[in-house]
Amino acid sequence: MTQTRQTAFQTLIASIQPADAGAMQAARERQAQLTKPAGALGLLEELSVRLAGVFSSATPDPRGAAVIVAAGDHGVVQEGVSAYPPEVTPAMVANFTANTPSGMGGAAVNAIARTVGARVYVADVGVNAKLPAHPALTSVKVRMGTRNLRLESAMTREETFQAVLAGADLAAQAIQEGADLIVPGEMGIGNTTPASAITARLLGLDVKDVTGRGTGVDDATLERKQRVILDALAREGSVTSDPLGVLADLGGLEIAFMLGVMLRAASQRRAIVLDGFVEGSAALVGVRLVPALQDYLFAAGECAEVGHAAQLSALGLTPMFRLGLRLGEGTGGVLAVPLIQSAAATLREMRTFAEASVPERG
Amino acid sequence: MTQTRQTAFQTLIASIQPADAGAMQAARERQAQLTKPAGALGLLEELSVRLAGVFSSATPDPRGAAVIVAAGDHGVVQEGVSAYPPEVTPAMVANFTANTPSGMGGAAVNAIARTVGARVYVADVGVNAKLPAHPALTSVKVRMGTRNLRLESAMTREETFQAVLAGADLAAQAIQEGADLIVPGEMGIGNTTPASAITARLLGLDVKDVTGRGTGVDDATLERKQRVILDALAREGSVTSDPLGVLADLGGLEIAFMLGVMLRAASQRRAIVLDGFVEGSAALVGVRLVPALQDYLFAAGECAEVGHAAQLSALGLTPMFRLGLRLGEGTGGVLAVPLIQSAAATLREMRTFAEASVPERG
Repeated sequence: MTQTRQTAFQTLIASIQPADAGAMQAARERQAQLTKPAGALGLLEELSVRLAGVFSSATPDPRGAAVIVAAGDHGVVQEGVSAYPPEVTPAMVANFTANTPSGMGGAAVNAIARTVGARVYVADVGVNAKLPAHPALTSVKVRMGTRNLRLESAMTREETFQAVLAGADLAAQAIQEGADLIVPGEMGIGNTTPASAITARLLGLDVKDVTGRGTGVDDATLERKQRVILDALAREGSVTSDPLGVLADLGGLEIAFMLGVMLRAASQRRAIVLDGFVEGSAALVGVRLVPALQDYLFAAGECAEVGHAAQLSALGLTPMFRLGLRLGEGTGGVLAVPLIQSAAATLREMRTFAEASVPERG
Repeated sequence: MTQTRQTAFQTLIASIQPADAGAMQAARERQAQLTKPAGALGLLEELSVRLAGVFSSATPDPRGAAVIVAAGDHGVVQEGVSAYPPEVTPAMVANFTANTPSGMGGAAVNAIARTVGARVYVADVGVNAKLPAHPALTSVKVRMGTRNLRLESAMTREETFQAVLAGADLAAQAIQEGADLIVPGEMGIGNTTPASAITARLLGLDVKDVTGRGTGVDDATLERKQRVILDALAREGSVTSDPLGVLADLGGLEIAFMLGVMLRAASQRRAIVLDGFVEGSAALVGVRLVPALQDYLFAAGECAEVGHAAQLSALGLTPMFRLGLRLGEGTGGVLAVPLIQSAAATLREMRTFAEASVPERG
């Protein structure tokens, strides 16, 4: 079984090709001809060129958007690292799929996704509760939450492959159902703890520089959280090198799932819109596994969590906004969808100076 | 005639009321109950509360969006302050209303407005060319461009009232046709020169600190532009105090028009989404005339033009993004429309902890 999953994982990794350099060059030349001063659209111009590379077209047309929210629990919550009880994870999954007067879901990600026209997918990859079936909930539970990373490896490699491949499968479904822009999102009380641990490990940074207040812990809890992460990284047998091993060692299931979402999206040449710090930790694992993944990543905003700027810098990504978000669920990524669609639209729909008979600069 | 226009202007000013403090308080209380950690939506939460104040509802529902692009020319271009020839202004107006395979308009503002579902209105308030009639072009030409502000007052007070009231009328039409979010935009070769002059005058700042490269002028042109503005501000008879007089003295017609758009939008309790530096100069005049206008202003992004940050600070506004835009046309404001709609959607569509049976923090 491991052999099979590992093989599928390797095949997925191997299928990721760099962005189309020819389309990017054509897009760059086209941007220079459009009816505006050169560079006047700022970061949108760079984004449009990168989109051309992803979609292999100088006039990219990414329409459908999907946010895939993966939920999982974390054994490490028994160390008291979160401001919220773990019961919030299943309650929020129910909230994502609840019937409300506005449609499916009463969480922030639902409200924002409705506004921008993104479809919401929800996956239970490791919630520590039995969840009722729901058409919009993909049940791919690997286990009832991770093990406590302070004391032992959070996941086995087998569990990690399983979660990654589940994410890849749901991304494939979203793409098949029309998504060109894929937003990985997450819900899991305690999940900034493994995200910080992964970030510290992969970037070689001090734990205190990449460990923030998550949902809003107080000073004492923040200090405890930092000690827990230091303990995990110093634990006997803690993995220091191969990225998949680091992910398995520190968790969590929804982070592994999001990695799978990203790998499949890149494999199928779709753009990935990164929300915040937990998504960033999955992306860091991804680019270590396959550097070409970077070509498919677009950073939504710089979130309020300490360490996110370091992630974005390591990923070589410039964030579109700084709204002080620290919610997760993929909310920031969904907010960025219209900006990305707009960047593509300028390249696709604007006329050139010649087409519009507009005089160029004197 | 002056008496009539001045009276209409005074009536418009007097009709602007502050935002609804009760609705804002109710929105603040609702935000604290929504299923997310307190403050986790960052700036979106503040925006949602301000929208509640604008629309007098704790669950605001701003749907329709309109960008109103005002075009005008500037006598000061004869001083050589722009990188582009003035013929670009009428050519771009034609571009805004051109038939293209994607729909009306081949400019950046058209492409972005189509993407986010905003309607585009175009007004000729002072283009120095005879423009062919077009159903989407409102012809309210006050004169064929302003006078050269270096040498004389750019506009008379009468011309200024005329341009302001034309803007107010088109805003009323856009609102009548469904717009809840109003984006003032502009096109006018040379118009960062009066915008810088107004900003320096009203904020008492050094000309070099509020004068940038506009569409991308070189060092020599930037220096010339700064000297022209210094000359204008030192000119005999240059107005130093009343805001309407400063606007008339320095120009331009599209800035006056945008002021009218803002005043009418505030009067009819609609949200105004500010794009860049030229829009900011109109807003500065507006809040000096009627401080309550501030309640209706939302800053899209911090643009790349020197002096925009100073404007936003004086206006008390926090920008949503920093994309390095410096195009104008209202592009940044249109890009911000989905962010503002999303902020309102969280307040309107998210469930509370009680409604969703989600446990609160431990």
